[in-house]
Amino acid sequence: MAKIGFDIGGTNIAAGLVSDEGVLLKKGSLPFPQDKDFEKVLSTCEQLVAALEEGETEPVKSVGVAVPGSIDATASIVLNAFNLGFSNTPLKEALEERLHKAVFLINDADAAVLAEHRVGSLRGCSNAFMITLGTGLGGGFIFNGTLFRGGRGNGTEPGHAILVNGGRHCTCGNDGCAEAYCAATRLVQDGKAYGWSSAKMVIDAAKAGDPFANAIVNAYVDDIGSYLASVINLLDPERIAIGGGVSAAGEFIMKPIRENVQKKTFFDQPTDIVVATAGNDAGIFGAAFIAE
Amino acid sequence: MAKIGFDIGGTNIAAGLVSDEGVLLKKGSLPFPQDKDFEKVLSTCEQLVAALEEGETEPVKSVGVAVPGSIDATASIVLNAFNLGFSNTPLKEALEERLHKAVFLINDADAAVLAEHRVGSLRGCSNAFMITLGTGLGGGFIFNGTLFRGGRGNGTEPGHAILVNGGRHCTCGNDGCAEAYCAATRLVQDGKAYGWSSAKMVIDAAKAGDPFANAIVNAYVDDIGSYLASVINLLDPERIAIGGGVSAAGEFIMKPIRENVQKKTFFDQPTDIVVATAGNDAGIFGAAFIAE
Repeated sequence: MAKIGFDIGGTNIAAGLVSDEGVLLKKGSLPFPQDKDFEKVLSTCEQLVAALEEGETEPVKSVGVAVPGSIDATASIVLNAFNLGFSNTPLKEALEERLHKAVFLINDADAAVLAEHRVGSLRGCSNAFMITLGTGLGGGFIFNGTLFRGGRGNGTEPGHAILVNGGRHCTCGNDGCAEAYCAATRLVQDGKAYGWSSAKMVIDAAKAGDPFANAIVNAYVDDIGSYLASVINLLDPERIAIGGGVSAAGEFIMKPIRENVQKKTFFDQPTDIVVATAGNDAGIFGAAFIAE
Repeated sequence: MAKIGFDIGGTNIAAGLVSDEGVLLKKGSLPFPQDKDFEKVLSTCEQLVAALEEGETEPVKSVGVAVPGSIDATASIVLNAFNLGFSNTPLKEALEERLHKAVFLINDADAAVLAEHRVGSLRGCSNAFMITLGTGLGGGFIFNGTLFRGGRGNGTEPGHAILVNGGRHCTCGNDGCAEAYCAATRLVQDGKAYGWSSAKMVIDAAKAGDPFANAIVNAYVDDIGSYLASVINLLDPERIAIGGGVSAAGEFIMKPIRENVQKKTFFDQPTDIVVATAGNDAGIFGAAFIAE
């Protein structure tokens, strides 16, 4: 039976009806309440469900919800989702009462991994890794054909593996996290001195042959290469998918990343490194797939 | 039925008869042939089996072999084991012919992890990590209650996750691997200028209050802390076991490691960090446990 998947972000709440075969049948989106009022968040979700169920022969029984934050080990409380104003928020219970449906919570990075595995570039993989290079570095693992939600259920924080111990300061408080080197934000930081104000501007300048932009991109590729080589040496995944804005640069960035990784890995057999393909609806898909 | 486990090292070949309940019933050891002649290696293994089977009512049917090197994905060929002079050596087939028993190969680091899980400090864990801090940094993972042998069967090389990208040169050819910072060898390198020629000497001097030794140990603890925090942030294990010479320093090194790790991990729930307890016979145990 079809499920509803919610992708709750700080700007919009998107929702979609997803069939058991993984087809997005219809979708809708409403603004996230500007005052972050929890009651309004619940009402907005209710409205979206009503819109999606309109014309359906029977009500949807089960709903998945992707949130940009950490979820407790029982998958019922959002411990922290700064952009949503959630802190120890009993979202599962509140939504179940409001919607009269079973509700399942998932971190948005995990939802992206699940979507990638079910309908994207990681289809058919037993052991795989995905990262999203955007403002931060999110991602997750597929182990034995299923989403890995942490050894104790706390999830995974692949952006906070340390890449340069004692190096660049990370928003998490540590120095030298992979996120501080591999997120798209790093390109913005390094490009600022040259007047480039976005990752895309740096990459476009590099593509056009600017030597400073190329130096920035080369250093960035070297860091991503080291980070992915670390994950490969630790876990030997079959395939790695890279999503987020940076991956839109396609082979211009993917080819040097592959070459850099291959130089640094312990195993002769290259790990397949591909661009993520689940796209903008990955959050909706992943949320729907977690719903039982 | 009891199994025989072999632990083949560059100095000795140790072997033991291990019961299904994980009890080491008897063991023996012979020198590894100095000329590394493969025929002599096989004969030495044959002698050890004969000694272990003496007095037993029926012959052992299955043998596990731990080797310090990399094994191919079909677990039949030792790709490289420098200390043994093995290179693309078909050890499984050769030993099966010689011993007339089923033979199963395992990397010695994996054997240590398996032993730790079955008869050591990781008993009962579903998701755990173990490292051995010696000349190098070896180790491995338990996922879903079983030994993880790599997503593609290539094994795991946790010493070659990068900790300080571009940093200290590692024997693998990369710069900045965790092994270059966390192996006991690092204490020897840093202690040399002060006349300390072993990790134990540095640690003993630190225990006695020497400020230079303490500075070396503190920097070492900080690197191990960052490395373990990386693994925790990636995989959220229930427990981490530390083995090898350095762990013999006990709480003097374990307590600051725990404190350092806790400061750097994303999850509030501390991961249990303990000294490995499977001991010197871990290779024999792990090899016997892999035999079917």
